[in-house]
Amino acid sequence: MPDLRLEGGLFISFEGGEGAGKTSQINRLGQFLASKGYRVVTTREPGGTPEGEALRSLLVQRGGGSWNPMAETLLMLAGRGMHVEKVIKPALDHGKIVISDRFSDSTLAYQGYGRGLDRAKLEALTDMVLEGFAPDLTFVLDIAVVEGLSRSTKRIAAEAHDNDESEDRFERMGIEFHERIRQGFLDIAKASPGRCNVLDASRRMDEIAGQIEAVVMSKIGAL
Amino acid sequence: MPDLRLEGGLFISFEGGEGAGKTSQINRLGQFLASKGYRVVTTREPGGTPEGEALRSLLVQRGGGSWNPMAETLLMLAGRGMHVEKVIKPALDHGKIVISDRFSDSTLAYQGYGRGLDRAKLEALTDMVLEGFAPDLTFVLDIAVVEGLSRSTKRIAAEAHDNDESEDRFERMGIEFHERIRQGFLDIAKASPGRCNVLDASRRMDEIAGQIEAVVMSKIGAL
Repeated sequence: MPDLRLEGGLFISFEGGEGAGKTSQINRLGQFLASKGYRVVTTREPGGTPEGEALRSLLVQRGGGSWNPMAETLLMLAGRGMHVEKVIKPALDHGKIVISDRFSDSTLAYQGYGRGLDRAKLEALTDMVLEGFAPDLTFVLDIAVVEGLSRSTKRIAAEAHDNDESEDRFERMGIEFHERIRQGFLDIAKASPGRCNVLDASRRMDEIAGQIEAVVMSKIGAL
Repeated sequence: MPDLRLEGGLFISFEGGEGAGKTSQINRLGQFLASKGYRVVTTREPGGTPEGEALRSLLVQRGGGSWNPMAETLLMLAGRGMHVEKVIKPALDHGKIVISDRFSDSTLAYQGYGRGLDRAKLEALTDMVLEGFAPDLTFVLDIAVVEGLSRSTKRIAAEAHDNDESEDRFERMGIEFHERIRQGFLDIAKASPGRCNVLDASRRMDEIAGQIEAVVMSKIGAL
């Protein structure tokens, strides 16, 4: 097995609404790249560090608090800054491929498009905290809201041990909220066509995985 | 007993390093104003709301995480925004006097002067979150660092049930760190002489309390 390192690493984020299949695709891509000899780190937001996971508990679990959109954004940014400093940048400096389940686009989609926080202000805050740091490549898994929520609700029901730990905060919001988020991701992808790839997530998992692998290998080839 | 309401309320913050005696003076001022017939709300930062208290646990308790200065600032701002929205502004709208143990000046002093976060960036972040909201009156209780830490360490030893809950994070930092914070508060007060009153906190408690009461009553008289 070769030990392949990429100069400066490669940072890939997966974005999309609930039930789009991000986690499955991240696992498959991670296995695919590892089988080629690349060093892969998979991580997630909110989370990624012990501090970020503590914020995740406050943000997404029932009983974690009733946060306004600005506070949600600030907590996301606090966790993201720590995640970049402690996990993502060190891995990239070692030539690894970092795959994150959500990154900045999710904050713009959920807190901006979804919860209505002023998007220019949100982007200015992000710039102040991350100083321009962004993924090299982003996959937006796009799926009809009703289909995604149906998948997501089934997964949560299968996972939940008790209601207080269930991460169903956004699932309980209305369809219209999720439609705004879907549109948000599509707008973001349109504004950054070099970085973002929108994938139809209603297709078979193998088909989507093959498309993702092709895009990533092409990106690596071009480095 | 009269029921005195102030049009738009009055927002007073107490600032200063560890062991300056803020809590005692806040309690005395609250009792004094209540005895005159004013409606008084005393509160604290970090904290002030259930969400803010959860952030306080993450920030100040041992085992709550190892936060970088930017993340600390963002968590403080998240809690502060909620505190203003849910507690401070509603009380002011009802004509009450709100007295807060710490507010924005503490973030500038601790995370800016103390931990070295860029102060212009910190002030820009604060402006984006609070949109100019600030106390009407601020008391900076100033005391020599060694004397303040000596008082504070005694209080913590008397209060602590076990080490994990003890809020001694900053007490464990070096003297030089606390000297920077003291200088920070003095600089802040110098830049806002209309709002800030620096008080020598090494004096007898009664003497300090009398001075605070006189300043507050003069401010109320001028409203």
